[in-house]
Amino acid sequence: MENKTDVIVIGAGLSGLTAARKLEEAGYSVKVIEARERVGGRSFTHHLADGQVLDLGGQWIGPTQTKMYELCKELDLELYPTYNEGKIILYDNGKKTLMGSNNGALPKLNVFVLLGLGLTIKKVERLVEQIDLDEPWNHPKAKIWDGETLDSWIRKNTKIKKVREYFNIVSEVVFSTEARDISFLHFLFYIKSGSGMDNLLNIDEGAQKERIIGGTQEISVRLAKKLKGEVFFNNPVTRIEQSETGIKVFSREQFWEAKKVIVTLPPTLAGRITYQPPLPGMRDQLTQRIPAGSVIKIQVIYKTPFWRKEGLTGQAVSFTGPIKIVMDNSLPNDSRGVLVMFMEANDGREASEWSIEKRTQKAIECLVIYFGQKAADYLEYVEKNWCDDEYTRGCYGGHFTPGVWTGYGKHLRKPIQHIHWAGAETATVWNGYMEGAVRSGERAAAEVVEILCG
Amino acid sequence: MENKTDVIVIGAGLSGLTAARKLEEAGYSVKVIEARERVGGRSFTHHLADGQVLDLGGQWIGPTQTKMYELCKELDLELYPTYNEGKIILYDNGKKTLMGSNNGALPKLNVFVLLGLGLTIKKVERLVEQIDLDEPWNHPKAKIWDGETLDSWIRKNTKIKKVREYFNIVSEVVFSTEARDISFLHFLFYIKSGSGMDNLLNIDEGAQKERIIGGTQEISVRLAKKLKGEVFFNNPVTRIEQSETGIKVFSREQFWEAKKVIVTLPPTLAGRITYQPPLPGMRDQLTQRIPAGSVIKIQVIYKTPFWRKEGLTGQAVSFTGPIKIVMDNSLPNDSRGVLVMFMEANDGREASEWSIEKRTQKAIECLVIYFGQKAADYLEYVEKNWCDDEYTRGCYGGHFTPGVWTGYGKHLRKPIQHIHWAGAETATVWNGYMEGAVRSGERAAAEVVEILCG
Repeated sequence: MENKTDVIVIGAGLSGLTAARKLEEAGYSVKVIEARERVGGRSFTHHLADGQVLDLGGQWIGPTQTKMYELCKELDLELYPTYNEGKIILYDNGKKTLMGSNNGALPKLNVFVLLGLGLTIKKVERLVEQIDLDEPWNHPKAKIWDGETLDSWIRKNTKIKKVREYFNIVSEVVFSTEARDISFLHFLFYIKSGSGMDNLLNIDEGAQKERIIGGTQEISVRLAKKLKGEVFFNNPVTRIEQSETGIKVFSREQFWEAKKVIVTLPPTLAGRITYQPPLPGMRDQLTQRIPAGSVIKIQVIYKTPFWRKEGLTGQAVSFTGPIKIVMDNSLPNDSRGVLVMFMEANDGREASEWSIEKRTQKAIECLVIYFGQKAADYLEYVEKNWCDDEYTRGCYGGHFTPGVWTGYGKHLRKPIQHIHWAGAETATVWNGYMEGAVRSGERAAAEVVEILCG
Repeated sequence: MENKTDVIVIGAGLSGLTAARKLEEAGYSVKVIEARERVGGRSFTHHLADGQVLDLGGQWIGPTQTKMYELCKELDLELYPTYNEGKIILYDNGKKTLMGSNNGALPKLNVFVLLGLGLTIKKVERLVEQIDLDEPWNHPKAKIWDGETLDSWIRKNTKIKKVREYFNIVSEVVFSTEARDISFLHFLFYIKSGSGMDNLLNIDEGAQKERIIGGTQEISVRLAKKLKGEVFFNNPVTRIEQSETGIKVFSREQFWEAKKVIVTLPPTLAGRITYQPPLPGMRDQLTQRIPAGSVIKIQVIYKTPFWRKEGLTGQAVSFTGPIKIVMDNSLPNDSRGVLVMFMEANDGREASEWSIEKRTQKAIECLVIYFGQKAADYLEYVEKNWCDDEYTRGCYGGHFTPGVWTGYGKHLRKPIQHIHWAGAETATVWNGYMEGAVRSGERAAAEVVEILCG
């Protein structure tokens, strides 16, 4: 039967394709079912008219993301460093200042603020060290930390408004959601998962260190090409039926049969599939509780990277929106300049209701404030609102709201009979990142192999 | 065409049937599409072998629930009061004490605790007064209150452990979720929506005042009988397509066409339908952020209500689980005694993974502690785990996690072209209760009528 296979993988993103590959390496047949007409999931590369590419989704890799470096090497993908020479613009309360680009996670602020910030970061880091990535709910204080938001923890731990604002920007940049939206325990887990605050936030020797020539989607394209099993595109999975003997996976048009299935969708989307028999209450309720962040990724193309001549990195950090973070995203071997920026969290939510004209205007207004009038003279505006994307429904990833790690954490990776769970949100290391997606795919494949070969 | 109608209502619970009725009264044709083989949604009545009934879902009504009283009167449904004579058992730290049954929301505790509790409740009530039920996000302090959990607010506002525990029990009883799981702003909104803490928690002159003879599901049964339009059972809606001219609603087996649709499902389930065109990002993300509470409702039937002879109400409040709340749920004109109890929040989550034998044993163990050895001698154990129920996925209702009211509140009732939203979670008054469901159905019907007749 053509529609029969050992294992079905749902989702042709990094997690799914890695899982499929590992399964094939172990000698099992695989079919990958994908909702979209393309591979890559949240790594999605836009091709400009002249063949150059812009990543509309995940784009950076950096130290400790060992699986990503291995993949790039194996797939003959070259890397190029994020431009990071010159000064960073800090925009605060109508005032623009410049700071060096090697401050670690610390912006340039007055000395008292900086001191308070340093102390609060140290405090956070001491807590981060204590987290067990496999079972963060097991810490003696887990219920207390999971009982408050990052925002309320910060308010309790510093009286300096600027420090609170800084942490809110960290939340926006890392989670695309406000500090008030996430569990403090989740914050600690995530920082640990991403190798610490410095690593998460930095460029040189940090998670934004380098990009992939040709775009990150190319990893998935090449992985898919190497698969023996077929990838079925344009087939959003609507239903999974399982019995003692195996599993049937349905899209609107067709169905497939297998012994096992790996679902790689983010939890909030995995919960939308109809399961027969219905999933246990606790697994279902978990998927009700890991909402996706809110972000619109925007790239503005210029004739040249004019900021470089002015001694600027192209990076801006602003305490006011709608654009709070800008970085140089210029292309390799290309004379044009590209700035990448994000409308995140409540800024992104508000901007989601604007027309594209209004978003363009607002973005350019911010860029003119940060980089001067030259920023008004752009060639092209490219955006991607991940909240609107039917098959992602929010980026960068899902976050845990208060009470979810302690109430439901143990259900995150627990297989339900023949169904195994992968995806960046299930990763222990680099949760929410491309690295985490790959690791989760390999972990789920290993689970399945162990059962099938046993 | 048989499958054409003016308005399709999805869900034959109190909200949907009320909406359908209002639409028919205004002269429009209606079809109601229901996933289950029955009406009533979260009001679900279990028929014992001898014809007596137990409500497995919503069962109480009380003062200020004017729509419910009107409905009962109109549908010739009689009421009977919740038994509330005698003492209440308070179980705390291995010690059982008795208290009077007219303490309002206050349990019997030592005088310092009681004082602290009274003060904290007063503080909460002063904040509750300031909430605008239509737009709770508009309060000047909304972002701060929405930026913390009920748990972290309580920890900040009292040092008395017992007061914190009390509020956690309130959270469990009212929301079926831990105080750490909900936004403090949502707590304030909900208390206001339910006419204040005393009203929400009380029996005499409170939300638990009386029950409906024949069970609450009978309201829906009688409402459905009066409809001219058909109710289609066993048709979980999988897809809604809309265009300029109207709407198509699909189940796996068939489809219907209409000018407008009212979706009455809880937000977390409404988000699982496939919409074409896809819903705007903000509406979708809202549905990712209102998870349902966790509760197993248990009823234990005895030969007689033996506790009454001992001067007890049958009510117990315990600071330890898995059963923290017990009430007399004996039947009208019946010599048997019934105790109703709840495994809620984390107790319910843990118990969801037990076998029914273990849950029975644990429940009876609690009852024996509270009511003595006689409680071991029961006739029947009846339970309903609402988390496992595929078409509800948690009770009593959905709660707002931190940041959701301020980030997404305005999308809660906002129609998307031809789609209108109802259900208890969308109510301003008695949100989450049967009363709120009815009010939301009437509100959504009024929105549709205004457009269709305009």
